[in-house]
Amino acid sequence: MQLFTKLLPSASYLVARSIITTQSRRLLVHGTPRQAKQQRVITQTKVATVSTPDQLVQNETMSSADVETILAPLRQAVKDQGDLVRKLKEAKSPKLEVDEAVKELKKRKKTLEEKEKSLAPPDEAFNRAKMEDLLKRRFVYDQAFSLYGGVAGLFDFGPIGCMMKNNITDMWRSHFILEESMLEVDCTMLTPANVLKASGHVDKFADHMVKDLKTGECFRADHLLQAHMEKLLADKKTPEETKAKCREYMPRLDDFNKQQLTEKFQELGVKSPTNNNDLSEPMEFNLMFQTNIGPAGLLPGFLRPETAQGIFLNFKRLLEFNQNKLPFAAAQIGVSFRNEISPRSGLIRCREFPMAEIEHFLDPEDKDHPKFSSVADLKVTLYSGKMQVSGQSPAVTTLGEAVKQGTIANESLGYFMGRIFLFMVKVGIHPDKLRFRQHMENEMAHYACDCWDAECKTSYGWVECVGCADRSCFDLCQHSVATKTALCYSKPLPEPIMVDVTEIEPQKSVLGKTLKKDAKPVTEHLQSLGEEDILQLEKVLQDKGEAVVSVKGKDFSIKPDMIKVKRYQKKKFVEEITPGVIEPSFGIGRVMYAVLEHNFRMREGDEQRTFFSLPAMVAPYKCSVLPLSGNEEFVPFVKQLSDSLTRADMSHKVDDSSGSIGRRYARTDEIAIPFGITVDFDTVNKEPSTVTLRERDSMGQVRLPIDDVPQVVSDLSAGRISWADVENKYPKFQAQETSRSDV
Amino acid sequence: MQLFTKLLPSASYLVARSIITTQSRRLLVHGTPRQAKQQRVITQTKVATVSTPDQLVQNETMSSADVETILAPLRQAVKDQGDLVRKLKEAKSPKLEVDEAVKELKKRKKTLEEKEKSLAPPDEAFNRAKMEDLLKRRFVYDQAFSLYGGVAGLFDFGPIGCMMKNNITDMWRSHFILEESMLEVDCTMLTPANVLKASGHVDKFADHMVKDLKTGECFRADHLLQAHMEKLLADKKTPEETKAKCREYMPRLDDFNKQQLTEKFQELGVKSPTNNNDLSEPMEFNLMFQTNIGPAGLLPGFLRPETAQGIFLNFKRLLEFNQNKLPFAAAQIGVSFRNEISPRSGLIRCREFPMAEIEHFLDPEDKDHPKFSSVADLKVTLYSGKMQVSGQSPAVTTLGEAVKQGTIANESLGYFMGRIFLFMVKVGIHPDKLRFRQHMENEMAHYACDCWDAECKTSYGWVECVGCADRSCFDLCQHSVATKTALCYSKPLPEPIMVDVTEIEPQKSVLGKTLKKDAKPVTEHLQSLGEEDILQLEKVLQDKGEAVVSVKGKDFSIKPDMIKVKRYQKKKFVEEITPGVIEPSFGIGRVMYAVLEHNFRMREGDEQRTFFSLPAMVAPYKCSVLPLSGNEEFVPFVKQLSDSLTRADMSHKVDDSSGSIGRRYARTDEIAIPFGITVDFDTVNKEPSTVTLRERDSMGQVRLPIDDVPQVVSDLSAGRISWADVENKYPKFQAQETSRSDV
Repeated sequence: MQLFTKLLPSASYLVARSIITTQSRRLLVHGTPRQAKQQRVITQTKVATVSTPDQLVQNETMSSADVETILAPLRQAVKDQGDLVRKLKEAKSPKLEVDEAVKELKKRKKTLEEKEKSLAPPDEAFNRAKMEDLLKRRFVYDQAFSLYGGVAGLFDFGPIGCMMKNNITDMWRSHFILEESMLEVDCTMLTPANVLKASGHVDKFADHMVKDLKTGECFRADHLLQAHMEKLLADKKTPEETKAKCREYMPRLDDFNKQQLTEKFQELGVKSPTNNNDLSEPMEFNLMFQTNIGPAGLLPGFLRPETAQGIFLNFKRLLEFNQNKLPFAAAQIGVSFRNEISPRSGLIRCREFPMAEIEHFLDPEDKDHPKFSSVADLKVTLYSGKMQVSGQSPAVTTLGEAVKQGTIANESLGYFMGRIFLFMVKVGIHPDKLRFRQHMENEMAHYACDCWDAECKTSYGWVECVGCADRSCFDLCQHSVATKTALCYSKPLPEPIMVDVTEIEPQKSVLGKTLKKDAKPVTEHLQSLGEEDILQLEKVLQDKGEAVVSVKGKDFSIKPDMIKVKRYQKKKFVEEITPGVIEPSFGIGRVMYAVLEHNFRMREGDEQRTFFSLPAMVAPYKCSVLPLSGNEEFVPFVKQLSDSLTRADMSHKVDDSSGSIGRRYARTDEIAIPFGITVDFDTVNKEPSTVTLRERDSMGQVRLPIDDVPQVVSDLSAGRISWADVENKYPKFQAQETSRSDV
Repeated sequence: MQLFTKLLPSASYLVARSIITTQSRRLLVHGTPRQAKQQRVITQTKVATVSTPDQLVQNETMSSADVETILAPLRQAVKDQGDLVRKLKEAKSPKLEVDEAVKELKKRKKTLEEKEKSLAPPDEAFNRAKMEDLLKRRFVYDQAFSLYGGVAGLFDFGPIGCMMKNNITDMWRSHFILEESMLEVDCTMLTPANVLKASGHVDKFADHMVKDLKTGECFRADHLLQAHMEKLLADKKTPEETKAKCREYMPRLDDFNKQQLTEKFQELGVKSPTNNNDLSEPMEFNLMFQTNIGPAGLLPGFLRPETAQGIFLNFKRLLEFNQNKLPFAAAQIGVSFRNEISPRSGLIRCREFPMAEIEHFLDPEDKDHPKFSSVADLKVTLYSGKMQVSGQSPAVTTLGEAVKQGTIANESLGYFMGRIFLFMVKVGIHPDKLRFRQHMENEMAHYACDCWDAECKTSYGWVECVGCADRSCFDLCQHSVATKTALCYSKPLPEPIMVDVTEIEPQKSVLGKTLKKDAKPVTEHLQSLGEEDILQLEKVLQDKGEAVVSVKGKDFSIKPDMIKVKRYQKKKFVEEITPGVIEPSFGIGRVMYAVLEHNFRMREGDEQRTFFSLPAMVAPYKCSVLPLSGNEEFVPFVKQLSDSLTRADMSHKVDDSSGSIGRRYARTDEIAIPFGITVDFDTVNKEPSTVTLRERDSMGQVRLPIDDVPQVVSDLSAGRISWADVENKYPKFQAQETSRSDV
């Protein structure tokens, strides 16, 4: 996960920008301010929906043409302002003027987005409360430590959630690591502070919070200010003047620095929402969990806030493992930590969360990708920075076209966006609810980097689940500077070149005689000098006949007879370059949550009967085994099936409880089991033994020989055959399944 | 992982014993004092070996009969003392007398063990330095943060180590979770302090350390004392009196409490080994990493020291998931943390380490296992407590016999020991270097629990890699008491029984009239009273006509007309019991290390050519693809092979570097690739295309059609066919492989 979208070392002036601004450029996987903004929009939409029921009715009948008529002037307003910003920038107008124009642009953009959302038809198929009930009831996942009162932002995965997560992780490993021959690493979560100082996390990985001055309760400042302003806006008694201020501040929340937040808190009289107590001023709170490594308390450390740093720190070992060739990619699947101030929204904002990250190291001068053609024709929804600043909606395009047009910066970035798209669809994300949103700043910045978020539409709004960024050489450079170690790749030159070399040749006998035991360190120091230092030393010696060098805190006088300066030409076959990096970064918990939402279903006409329509590869159990009776005769058949499924590595669940078969089907549907095998009296009494096989989504059933089952289930689960194939091959079975819920 | 082997709630007097004693009863997976003891023995053995080269020569020629002659008197001495201890216990002799006898027994046992080790033939085949060189050179794993100077006890896994670890974990999941239909969970690592207070870790999970008074450097007290005594013993100038003391203290190191350690440090004048500075007194150091959850600093937490607690905390959800039936098992694979004072010995003692734990919940009155017969005939090496106290060597026996004899407490424990044995052998542990050692205390304690460690012989000595313990109901009881929540199973009674019930029937109208708004809490309080309290209340009302009850800190006067006491009989169908638990607990890093040692090989006659003979299922890559030439014509064949292997989910490594084929084979052998496919000029020029397939251990080669490769490699890797089968089916190929190292 990247901390800054494109803080190149050469663009270090950006570091000076306020923390919150820096954060809003951070690619989050886990709850960055940008995510907050999305949620904010949702909350506002909800408020709007609730407060104007007329509009809701209106929505249902409104055609898309009508919607566009309403949106057209808002789109135009964004476009006009976007044009203005561009013109101002081109004309190199004063910073203050540009900033003001950008502020207004953001405001117009937000107004447009809110209107779009409020006019969109509600997703009536989805009922979050019902889904959460199912998730809890069947222990897919649940709050951790609830026996001890529970801890916000920490979740335990039960058997279903755990298997589902493992399946998604395995598919990720196969889709990315195996197919692309990536190098997988597994690095520690405990991380010494100096590493995270170099990466920028110690200084910049913070949110603003306020504290209840009496109880010590903490709140995230921007969230609290937003909620307060929403309350003020909804309150009839609020003076119009105050409401106007709220409307002005709302779209700018993400950009407020500490000073501005403090002012707004005072101006609007924000108190604790719990008990109306006074609050502290907003203060920065670093989101990393701190601890001490070792008993002496001398090595402060943190739990890693992302897995990426472990890859960068092992760059040299990995390059060597790859026989010193570029490009190559390394990947890591692991847990990261983030001490959220007041986490809500379930799996989307956790304090401990699974990630999967890739660092694709490449020659910064050659970002083409040999396999780009394999994804060039993929149609994806892009929401480019340009679209965002010109008030356009996201649009479907091919990746090939987007790279050709320059919308996506290079082939390698486009290739990974394509692979991300394919992965997301494979694990069950609905393609219509998946879009790539470009970081706005890309449009407005001066350097080559580019960053896209794969966002999934959920009941929480568009949630960023994957980031895909061209990070240039930022991270390797940071660690290189901090450790004074070259983190480079020796790039073969097309033709060897001759280069001038200037070297010091220490006159060892003179040095030894004069400096005695200090001769060695001084000699080493002299030999380590770069060209510029050598020239300067030579000049000083010529001018003054003596120079002073400082080695390990001690000064030594150098005389002309102690060194010779050698000049010659050398053939060079390679140049040392710092690789660029493309970084796809997955929040596995968020992907999983989006998959659950996109696949939550109710049986037609029976809204009590809910289930998850997960792809078979993602489903925790591949099939159920259901004996129709508790009769002793059934036991050997159940055992035979269970053993043969185990041998075929097919996870399955035997349900020999006494519930009706309809009730048991409903129970297996709830936990997404795609296929159900029923052992009935015909299985036991007739030869050859046959069983029924039922498919979850269609509830269709066929009759097949018991010995065929493991192979058929295995083929279905791996996607080698489809359910239609099975229905073609085997006779249909007329089920006595209860269609109404009797759970 | 269990903290105490058998601290039953009913045996709480044991808690009062000293920390170090408690620790030595702890089942470690990661570096407990017991482990330390084993290493200590090794170190001592080494010293002995080095200081008496004569003995080494003697070893080589000594027959096992000679060895037994030397050991016989030592064995007898242990046996005599063991008998004495038993007699004293049976006679209920004073505690002091028993303790002294036990102390002497331990001393004799240690003397015997050391002698056994010093007489055992050295394992000349293994060279740890060579293995470590290979591990580092090919980045199997390496020290973490070495770019920043490195942190002791933290390791990063490179591609080879990471794949190997994933394979072992997958095999574990398949062997245990899938085959036994266990419920897998994935719980958080961050754990609030009150949870670990209840589990006993906050108070007891500590080692003793001493601090350099000037530099602050910390040392583990027992390790340092041991090293100091070894130095004294090896020094000719040490007075004989001091040496005698060292010899006396050495075997008792593990039993020393803080006071005793302090005395010995003073007595022997131990100083810092780094710079001879003075040291602090030994102090307890809790081994958990502490942090704060949430921003307010009000919720102290730790990183979990084991994964087991997460399972116990979810017991009720899991029982419900299992439709309220016993027995069932839950499992967790995850990372745990332990802030070692001064970690050495590589993967065996880390600060962050992977574990896999099972909690098998069962009816404490029925510990039989339906599948025990499937492991009853397995022959395993057992080192029972009885053997240990009677000076016998470990012996091979069947699990069936051991359970029958009562050596292993019950079938469920025996069943898991069998499954552990099968797993260990499957992943590559040599059966001759695997034994089960019973915790000594089992022999001497008064309750039913039993605990066995699966130990692997390595160059560090016998290292505990897996614990397998019958923990009774300890953990569930601890959390039940701490949270005032019943963690029970409703066990159906064989026949319903009639039970007497005594209940208070509050007279609500009287209570309401008298107590007004307080009526509700008082009524609830009265209804919650147990039988004993009811009888007492009834008596007081009869005797005095009034009783005072205290509800929420307020006293209320109760009159006889406010309640009636009802007595009746009720049919009871279930009884509430706290399940027992069998806990197999794997240190995955330790298993992995032992697998590496047991499979490290040198080619006969070429000790530069080292490799790992890992089972194909464990090997990181299943095969290599080696084009004999860099010629363009070879490319499509390599691509075809690579694509078809990817489709078959076979991890593989293409090595198209320009090294000789022998050199490239050697490189692939180093990273344990079991099968190598060579594309040569015949592949390119003749039809149909054939390639050679080479097996790593035998270096045998066959010629087969290129299209057969994926299926053959897949069958070989999964163990569906053997190399002999392949050699029978396809013609042998006479290789031009360089047998001497040219790496």
